[in-house]
Amino acid sequence: MPNNERYQRGLRKLAEVDPQASQQLTDALSSIAPDFARYVVEYPFGDIFSRPGLDLKTRELITVAALTALGAAPQLKFHLRAALNVGCTREEIVETLIQMSVYAGFPAALNGLYAAKEVFAAQSE
Amino acid sequence: MPNNERYQRGLRKLAEVDPQASQQLTDALSSIAPDFARYVVEYPFGDIFSRPGLDLKTRELITVAALTALGAAPQLKFHLRAALNVGCTREEIVETLIQMSVYAGFPAALNGLYAAKEVFAAQSE
Amino acid sequence: MPNNERYQRGLRKLAEVDPQASQQLTDALSSIAPDFARYVVEYPFGDIFSRPGLDLKTRELITVAALTALGAAPQLKFHLRAALNVGCTREEIVETLIQMSVYAGFPAALNGLYAAKEVFAAQSE
Amino acid sequence: MPNNERYQRGLRKLAEVDPQASQQLTDALSSIAPDFARYVVEYPFGDIFSRPGLDLKTRELITVAALTALGAAPQLKFHLRAALNVGCTREEIVETLIQMSVYAGFPAALNGLYAAKEVFAAQSE
Amino acid sequence: MPNNERYQRGLRKLAEVDPQASQQLTDALSSIAPDFARYVVEYPFGDIFSRPGLDLKTRELITVAALTALGAAPQLKFHLRAALNVGCTREEIVETLIQMSVYAGFPAALNGLYAAKEVFAAQSE
Amino acid sequence: MPNNERYQRGLRKLAEVDPQASQQLTDALSSIAPDFARYVVEYPFGDIFSRPGLDLKTRELITVAALTALGAAPQLKFHLRAALNVGCTREEIVETLIQMSVYAGFPAALNGLYAAKEVFAAQSE
Repeated sequence: MPNNERYQRGLRKLAEVDPQASQQLTDALSSIAPDFARYVVEYPFGDIFSRPGLDLKTRELITVAALTALGAAPQLKFHLRAALNVGCTREEIVETLIQMSVYAGFPAALNGLYAAKEVFAAQSE
Repeated sequence: MPNNERYQRGLRKLAEVDPQASQQLTDALSSIAPDFARYVVEYPFGDIFSRPGLDLKTRELITVAALTALGAAPQLKFHLRAALNVGCTREEIVETLIQMSVYAGFPAALNGLYAAKEVFAAQSE
Repeated sequence: MPNNERYQRGLRKLAEVDPQASQQLTDALSSIAPDFARYVVEYPFGDIFSRPGLDLKTRELITVAALTALGAAPQLKFHLRAALNVGCTREEIVETLIQMSVYAGFPAALNGLYAAKEVFAAQSE
Repeated sequence: MPNNERYQRGLRKLAEVDPQASQQLTDALSSIAPDFARYVVEYPFGDIFSRPGLDLKTRELITVAALTALGAAPQLKFHLRAALNVGCTREEIVETLIQMSVYAGFPAALNGLYAAKEVFAAQSE
Repeated sequence: MPNNERYQRGLRKLAEVDPQASQQLTDALSSIAPDFARYVVEYPFGDIFSRPGLDLKTRELITVAALTALGAAPQLKFHLRAALNVGCTREEIVETLIQMSVYAGFPAALNGLYAAKEVFAAQSE
Repeated sequence: MPNNERYQRGLRKLAEVDPQASQQLTDALSSIAPDFARYVVEYPFGDIFSRPGLDLKTRELITVAALTALGAAPQLKFHLRAALNVGCTREEIVETLIQMSVYAGFPAALNGLYAAKEVFAAQSE
């Protein structure tokens, strides 16, 4: 179990975004690339999301935008949940996805909206 | 000159984002696709950017994120200037670009930062 | 229910391409982004597919080409069916997909051909 | 100088598309990858563009669509010229580029239209 | 059944990479695009993978890198198995996937690692 | 000037790959995002390229493959030089680029080969 400062800061930030994520990530990668589970905690969350200068809600919305444009489905679902967890409204998320039709095309926006529909439905249960 | 409500609303919104843009766009496309200059005003700006639910600063930051991820250089520069015009700070823009290293890779983030450096330098003159 | 001219023209064009599509789209997006269902009818179909200058068969083949290159699987299946609906032959569709191996790589072409195989099989039943 | 049947068929097809292309390609790659100049003649032109089932004009339009979606600028300019050479009208090309705004986003369509403006202007001289 | 030299060389090379692949590919494409099954044997395997200058292990690792960056999931799984078949170690494959986090982003690397986990588990049975 | 272990290890690794790179990177980003110059040294070079399990030559070839597939031109040129610096032969680099025609399409491979031609010519002077 890594114990450095970046890792600890990343763990705390990741827990703000999704309380189960670090355990799930560690479990999912333990048999194949445990170091990469550590890097995910350290660089994106310990280094980047922990920086001042942009609030966590905006950090999640720009992530949702980028993942929609790139078509990275599993990570998009994760960050749609994370956006809700950190206080983004459904409306802000939907507006972000609709706007991607302009920059990445209507298919990217549609696939993003269908992913959000699933995430919102699961959250409502 | 189109005169419908969406076009007029788009013109006003585009002028908030960049006062010269609609004239430059019309000139650039007049000889090849004047209808497309109209569509750019109507759909992205008249329909999407004019929607409530997300403020203009956030709309520009998610656009910067998507264009950095997609590597669309000329439009990224336009929206880096637009982000400044609508009140995003340099720090917010730089944070957005740095965060793209996580989702779209370090090369995408670096190219975005070099574009921002040019835009910021031109604005400082 | 929107009732403007662009929407009505888009509905008619979308019905040429796929008679069930507008209802399915409205249903799929009603709980999350009903406005986006309207935009899909208005811009792609009311504005773009309704333009003169390119017949509907060619419009579907260039769409199949772009979606294969971009790897947008659900929309590719929709437009493979649409291409058949507007009179493209299976041979024209297959030629379009094979040609994508040159521009977007062999994996993109293979995934396009596997999608077409499913669509053609469903249509034959 | 390769002399097989595919290469000869590819040379003839490439000459239909652009009479100078095979010499330019051979020159450009002679010092670094002469075999790849041969492959470009053999596979895309000797195998694919020489197939029946899709006329050369449609083959060029689907290529323009894919290259616009992928953002491959030098090859897009080549195929914009090729599309004109094989008889596509400027209107058909512009319609193809405008339609890409739906599938690949407005920036991709704009960059395609600016490339076409340059190609059309050079041809008019 | 094609019988030319490139096809035969491609068949032998493809069998080195995956003994079942050519039959599976022929079966999968026989009803829709049998010529494309032949092209896959001839160009990627008969022409490219058969070239000297790079050993088969390195050819598989650069393929794994590109497919991870492009997000082409079915072909990535095929080449993860192929990489093992030609003698790449699990460690070399995992290192290749982890490194893609730098160039294509953490989501691309994660999706690659999850694909490798499935492929390694299936191989261990 | 950061002085942690990861940064120092990254500096040493980056100097193996390109002796001028860390100074150039620091200079280029000093006015806009000095922290990102540090991250580039720390994560890609201090964490990833410093890992055992894959030699530096293979690390550069998979990077060249990924950057060619992604179309990231400035970073591709940097890593084409880096590949030569760590001992890859021109032939190994050219083979990597040619192979990308299969996975990312002929335009990506051509643009990669033209970049390599410039890099090789500059090195020969």
